[in-house]
Amino acid sequence: MSQSNTPFDLPPDQPSSRSRRRLLGRLAAGGLVASQGAAAAAGELLRPLEVAPSSRVPGAPVLEHPYGVPSPREAGVVRRSARQWPLPGAASSMTPLADLHGTITPNGLVYERHHGGVPDIDADQHRLAIHGLVRTPKLFTMDDLLRLPAESRIHFLECSGNTGSEWNGPSGLPVQLTHGLLSCCEWTGVRLSTLLEEVGGVSAQSNANGGAWLLAEGADAAAMTRSLPLDRILERALVVYAQNGERLRPENGYPLRLIVPGFEGNTNVKWLRRLKVVDAPLQTREETSKYTSLLANGTARQFVFEMDAKSVITRPSPGHRLTTHGYYAISGIAWSGRGMIRKVEVSTDGGASWRLARLDGAARDRALTRFEADWRWDGAPAEILSRATDSTGYVQPTRAQLVAARGLNSQYHYNAIQQWRVDASGEVRNA
Amino acid sequence: MSQSNTPFDLPPDQPSSRSRRRLLGRLAAGGLVASQGAAAAAGELLRPLEVAPSSRVPGAPVLEHPYGVPSPREAGVVRRSARQWPLPGAASSMTPLADLHGTITPNGLVYERHHGGVPDIDADQHRLAIHGLVRTPKLFTMDDLLRLPAESRIHFLECSGNTGSEWNGPSGLPVQLTHGLLSCCEWTGVRLSTLLEEVGGVSAQSNANGGAWLLAEGADAAAMTRSLPLDRILERALVVYAQNGERLRPENGYPLRLIVPGFEGNTNVKWLRRLKVVDAPLQTREETSKYTSLLANGTARQFVFEMDAKSVITRPSPGHRLTTHGYYAISGIAWSGRGMIRKVEVSTDGGASWRLARLDGAARDRALTRFEADWRWDGAPAEILSRATDSTGYVQPTRAQLVAARGLNSQYHYNAIQQWRVDASGEVRNA
Repeated sequence: MSQSNTPFDLPPDQPSSRSRRRLLGRLAAGGLVASQGAAAAAGELLRPLEVAPSSRVPGAPVLEHPYGVPSPREAGVVRRSARQWPLPGAASSMTPLADLHGTITPNGLVYERHHGGVPDIDADQHRLAIHGLVRTPKLFTMDDLLRLPAESRIHFLECSGNTGSEWNGPSGLPVQLTHGLLSCCEWTGVRLSTLLEEVGGVSAQSNANGGAWLLAEGADAAAMTRSLPLDRILERALVVYAQNGERLRPENGYPLRLIVPGFEGNTNVKWLRRLKVVDAPLQTREETSKYTSLLANGTARQFVFEMDAKSVITRPSPGHRLTTHGYYAISGIAWSGRGMIRKVEVSTDGGASWRLARLDGAARDRALTRFEADWRWDGAPAEILSRATDSTGYVQPTRAQLVAARGLNSQYHYNAIQQWRVDASGEVRNA
Repeated sequence: MSQSNTPFDLPPDQPSSRSRRRLLGRLAAGGLVASQGAAAAAGELLRPLEVAPSSRVPGAPVLEHPYGVPSPREAGVVRRSARQWPLPGAASSMTPLADLHGTITPNGLVYERHHGGVPDIDADQHRLAIHGLVRTPKLFTMDDLLRLPAESRIHFLECSGNTGSEWNGPSGLPVQLTHGLLSCCEWTGVRLSTLLEEVGGVSAQSNANGGAWLLAEGADAAAMTRSLPLDRILERALVVYAQNGERLRPENGYPLRLIVPGFEGNTNVKWLRRLKVVDAPLQTREETSKYTSLLANGTARQFVFEMDAKSVITRPSPGHRLTTHGYYAISGIAWSGRGMIRKVEVSTDGGASWRLARLDGAARDRALTRFEADWRWDGAPAEILSRATDSTGYVQPTRAQLVAARGLNSQYHYNAIQQWRVDASGEVRNA
């Protein structure tokens, strides 16, 4: 056989005919994923003692990409839209959750939802105005904001329309297209409370009328605007200029956006150009014609901000295929707009029985939490699902419970338990 | 004046000539960054009541970039090399720390250090072998690894050569080129301890000879190899396939790398193809000809793995310019390969006096910690510097202390306090 050409290592067990047989003899069953490795080809076990094909040629230089890009072999891991939108600037694209791991969404895969397309804004010319019922209205340059005390926090963002495809039952879509209006980043910027101190605080007028509201306006072609209850957001809201360490991406609000942790995505106004303190919500287009939920009795829920606790299994999920029987770690994400995830339960029998999943890492407020549950697939068809409970005690509902409470007219805030079907061939479907 | 064309808002204080005067009258001094906003142009305060230029044209569609890219206006925020390398595949590029925020490094800006270039590896064909002094040597496919229990953790990576430019005094370089062999990501993969259980555990032989070591080998053209003391890394080491949520980038080890939290960067072997349990370090090229530190007395420090506590101010730093006198938040990062950052102190007078910086967010083990200190710049020249203390009580040394202990022959593990000079014009220099 060929000698090892690696530069360092002529190991004591350099395979001779005898040691080769000994090495193969040690290939016994055992461990969680023994079967596949063992089945592959016993001769393969010698591969690590030979030179890797990729070691025989010089690799690519540094700075081939001064700003790096993913492997071309991962070219299928991109944002996608669930449908053709009539106006491509008033549309959405979705995060490929089935291909992601951990809790951070890389900036290139953060979901998009625009109402008037992505504006091209010169950060040097951009200004944030804070005015209305404040003592000293001010305009802030980006440099002004960068000089102020900053804070970084990891939070999820979810469009209130996320998973709306499932109101009428299983859509057949994969998790990217059912749950992919969901991402999670480290956001860096200035606390809203710091900015309100900069303008001398909210003036007394605002207190006479049941508490102040904050109008946030974007500099996009939709002049996207939302009214937000100041008391409820003041403690947590950030005006951010960075996501996952670098300046915001254009489609995520460059150079400035509002982050209101736990609130529905559209309230996290992008391309933020002004914050106006007012004494009542302004009933903007985006809180009247959109983002209200019509109930069965004909009334509508308005100003429903918090995204309720929710979870979904991302692996295995539709598009994945179980290749052999045996052990699989079922992996998914859970989140709540009202606090932390306290527990996640997983079922592999359609909800007849549940077991507690492991939560990965320290609990984070209003951020994705990764969960995992051990499963040994015996080859029989299975229904796998997850159920989140948050720190308020709220339990993610079944679809039947959600429809009973809200009816079927509501486009928004669908957070029911999601079930995937694994058939005997190992194929996973949303059915 | 023009009427507001925003769709929602004819505010009670719609500026008339009178209200315009009132608005301008309210523009009083106050707050941390009042001066600049006020000085800019008082008439600008009316801008928020007009339509933003970027609102007058439709924006770009969704999915203009299915995998998103930074704003072209941030095109200068890229990795750079400190010098021309004779072999571009045995070289490094550095993270632009002065332009980053928070603690996460976006994948496109994670520093590079290769010994034989970036190999092109087909993940479907890639195998990880675990062999040597283990009960059941095995080959793992990527699918095998993805089926195993996973864990995600945020850790920094630092090349042991980072900041070597400063051994002989201030280099004049900006922070990207002095400290940019440093990045921090959320890494996802399988615990090393889980994998060793998969191979039936380390066999008894290994205990006879002072503890087992682990040889890690990469599939690159350098067949990069390091020996690691198993007992010291077993609790924390991960074999990872993802960084910041997505699969590893090619230059960061796609499809598989070792993460040894807190250990010098090169031990976090990329393109990982095998782990061999051995009973003593194998004295590979990368632990003899490189990555040992020659001391003044002619002896060398070998197997110095942990990166000691260190910090650096990233804003302001060389290349930034203070435009006006007044308030600035001094911002920087601190880290330790031995645990958490307990405190960071900042000085603005060359180290004559120190004050405690705020630490942003929850303390994380072996991860970047962002710190911040308030500063009011009066226009006089200043020397700004930071000093980290970690959870072991270790205090970041001065350059003089470090040189006294290690001499000037050592290329590696430079972690002294870094000082930037602010001159009267507001320019910041490494001098």
